[in-house]
Amino acid sequence: VHLADLPTPALLVDGPALAHNIATMAAARPGPELRPHVKAFKSTAIARELVAAGHDNFCCATVREVEVMAAAGLGADLLLANEVLDADRLGAVADRGARVTVAVDSEETITAAALGGVREVLIDVNVGLPRCGCRPGDAASLAEMARATGLEVRGVMGYEGHLMDWTDRAAQAAEVEKSMAQLVAAHADVGGDVVSGGGTGTYDVNHWVTELQAGSYTLMDSHYARLGLPFRQALYLLTTVISVHPDGWLVTNGGLKSLAMDHGNPSIAGERGDRGEVFFCSDEHTTITGRPGAAVGQHVWLVPAHVDPTVAKHEMLHVVDGERVVDHWPIDMRHW
Amino acid sequence: VHLADLPTPALLVDGPALAHNIATMAAARPGPELRPHVKAFKSTAIARELVAAGHDNFCCATVREVEVMAAAGLGADLLLANEVLDADRLGAVADRGARVTVAVDSEETITAAALGGVREVLIDVNVGLPRCGCRPGDAASLAEMARATGLEVRGVMGYEGHLMDWTDRAAQAAEVEKSMAQLVAAHADVGGDVVSGGGTGTYDVNHWVTELQAGSYTLMDSHYARLGLPFRQALYLLTTVISVHPDGWLVTNGGLKSLAMDHGNPSIAGERGDRGEVFFCSDEHTTITGRPGAAVGQHVWLVPAHVDPTVAKHEMLHVVDGERVVDHWPIDMRHW
Repeated sequence: VHLADLPTPALLVDGPALAHNIATMAAARPGPELRPHVKAFKSTAIARELVAAGHDNFCCATVREVEVMAAAGLGADLLLANEVLDADRLGAVADRGARVTVAVDSEETITAAALGGVREVLIDVNVGLPRCGCRPGDAASLAEMARATGLEVRGVMGYEGHLMDWTDRAAQAAEVEKSMAQLVAAHADVGGDVVSGGGTGTYDVNHWVTELQAGSYTLMDSHYARLGLPFRQALYLLTTVISVHPDGWLVTNGGLKSLAMDHGNPSIAGERGDRGEVFFCSDEHTTITGRPGAAVGQHVWLVPAHVDPTVAKHEMLHVVDGERVVDHWPIDMRHW
Repeated sequence: VHLADLPTPALLVDGPALAHNIATMAAARPGPELRPHVKAFKSTAIARELVAAGHDNFCCATVREVEVMAAAGLGADLLLANEVLDADRLGAVADRGARVTVAVDSEETITAAALGGVREVLIDVNVGLPRCGCRPGDAASLAEMARATGLEVRGVMGYEGHLMDWTDRAAQAAEVEKSMAQLVAAHADVGGDVVSGGGTGTYDVNHWVTELQAGSYTLMDSHYARLGLPFRQALYLLTTVISVHPDGWLVTNGGLKSLAMDHGNPSIAGERGDRGEVFFCSDEHTTITGRPGAAVGQHVWLVPAHVDPTVAKHEMLHVVDGERVVDHWPIDMRHW
C-alpha cells in the first residue's frame, strides 16, 4: 500500500523513527530500568516492539490499558500508576495470571485494592505536581496500613510531571534532584525494591528512580521536541488539502477531532520541505496560511502538539517507511 | 441502574434537558427548517429523537457520519457539509438508496463528486470564516460547471462560523446579516431550493437560510452557555474523586482524554451545588481547588467546554434522569 491510497485523516507512525527512539531509550535505560508507559501509544503492537527491545514491565494509566495488555499476553509486570476505587476489574486480571500492581495514596484506595483482589501496591508520593500522591511524610504510615491489610508493598512511585517540559535543562536537573530527594526519603521509610517515576522529559536527568515511566519518547510531539532530546518525531497526522481560497489560505481535512489541542495547534512537518503556518483548527479542518502554490488533493503532514491524547482519538496507527505503508496497528487500549 | 453503579469517567446526557432543547429548537425551526448537524452528538439514538421531533434531513461533517446514518435508516436527506475528494464511499451510500448531497467549492471537488457517483451538490460559499467555500462571485460558474458534469445543484451553503460565539448579540445579528447577504446573492446566481447555513449560536438571528445547520444546542457546553440561549446544559462528564491532598486540592479521574480542551478547561456543574474551581487537566486527571470537605469516592460533574470533540472521545452516552441511568446510547458515528 502506498500513502496515496490511505484515506485521510490518517495517523501515521514513521517506522524507522520509532525504531530509533526505542533503541535510543533502551541503550540509556535497558530492560527493567525502563517501565514504558502505554498511555502514550495505547497499542499492544508498540508494546510488543518494546518487549523485543528488552522491556517486559509496563506502566498503565487506566484499568482498560491493564486489561488489554494482560489479554494480549503482556502481563509480566503491569503497574497501574494511578489511584482507582473500582479495583475489581484489576483483581480479575490478576486472577487470570497477570502480575498487577496499583498505586495507592489513601486509606480508601488501599481498601479498594485489597477488596478488589489486587495483591501488590506502590505508595504514590507527591513530589511537587499538584495531583495524586501522599505527602512524603505520610508514606510510611500508608505502607504500614497496606501491609496490615495483607497487601505486598513493592516500594514507592512519584511523578515529577511539573518538571517534564523545562527547556532550561540545567535548572530542570536541579529541580528533579530536589523532587526525587523527597521520593528517596519516602522510599527509605517504606522499603521494597521499586522506586518508580520520571518520564521522557527527565529520562537523562532523573538518576534516582530504579525504573523510568516514559512513553512519549516512542512517538514524540512538537511540545517535547523543544527539549532537544535525541528522539525523533515519529507521529504525524496525514491530511489532504480539500480547499484552496484565492485570498491565500488552504484547508486540510484533519482538525481538532483528530489532534489534541491542550498543548496548542499542530505544526507543519518542516523536515519534509513543507511550508506554511497553522492558522486554526476546527472540528474536521485545519486552515493553513503562507503556502502559495498549494493545490487541492495534496498531502499535508501535521505534527501533533501532544502525543498521548492525539493517539487516543484514533482507531489505527498506519506504519510508514518513506512513502510505503508497511503495517496497520490497532490502537487497542482506548477508553476506560 | 443508579449513577453510583456507573464506572467513571462516564459521559452523561441529562434526558429531560435534551428533550427540552430538542423541543425548543423544533418550535423555532420546525421540520425541514432545521437540518440537525450530527457532528455534535455522533449518535444515531439522538438522531432518532430529532426525527421524532419532526426533522428528517441531517447534516454531516464526515463520510463516516453519512455512512452510519444511512445504515441506520436515517438517510432521507443527508448533506455532507464539507468538501471531499474520496467520494466513492458517498456514491456507494447513494447507490444503496439514501439521498446524499455534498458540498463543493472547486473544480476538483465537483469532479470527485461526479466520479464518485454522488448526484446532488450544494455550492459552498465562503461568507467570512477563513475555511472552505468559494468567493461569492465564483458560485455561479461553479454551479454551471457542476451542472455540465451532470450533477444536480440544489442550492448554496455558507457557514458563518466566525460569528457563532459572539456574546454581544446585537452586534452579532448585524454581522450575520452582512454575512448572509453574500450567501443570498450567491443563491440568486446559483438557483435551487436550498440556502443552508447557521448554527446554534445564530439560530435566532439568521433569518436568511432555508435550513439551519445546528447540532450543539442538543447537548450544549460551557462555551455556548455564555450566549444566554434558551438551551440547557445536557452533557456532563461524571468523574470520581480519587485523591484528596491535605494542602487543599483534590483529583478526579476524568481528564483531557475524556474532555475536549480547545475551548479551555471544563467547568464544575454549579447548579448541582458543587463547588471548587478547575486548576488543570492532565490525561486522566482533573485537579480541583477550593472545595473543602471533599472525600475520596465522591462524584464531581464536569461541564465540557466544547461539546463536539468531547463526545467524539467516548464510546457511549449514558442517559440520566436525576440519579437514575435510563439508557445507554452508543456514539456510533465516530472516526472517519
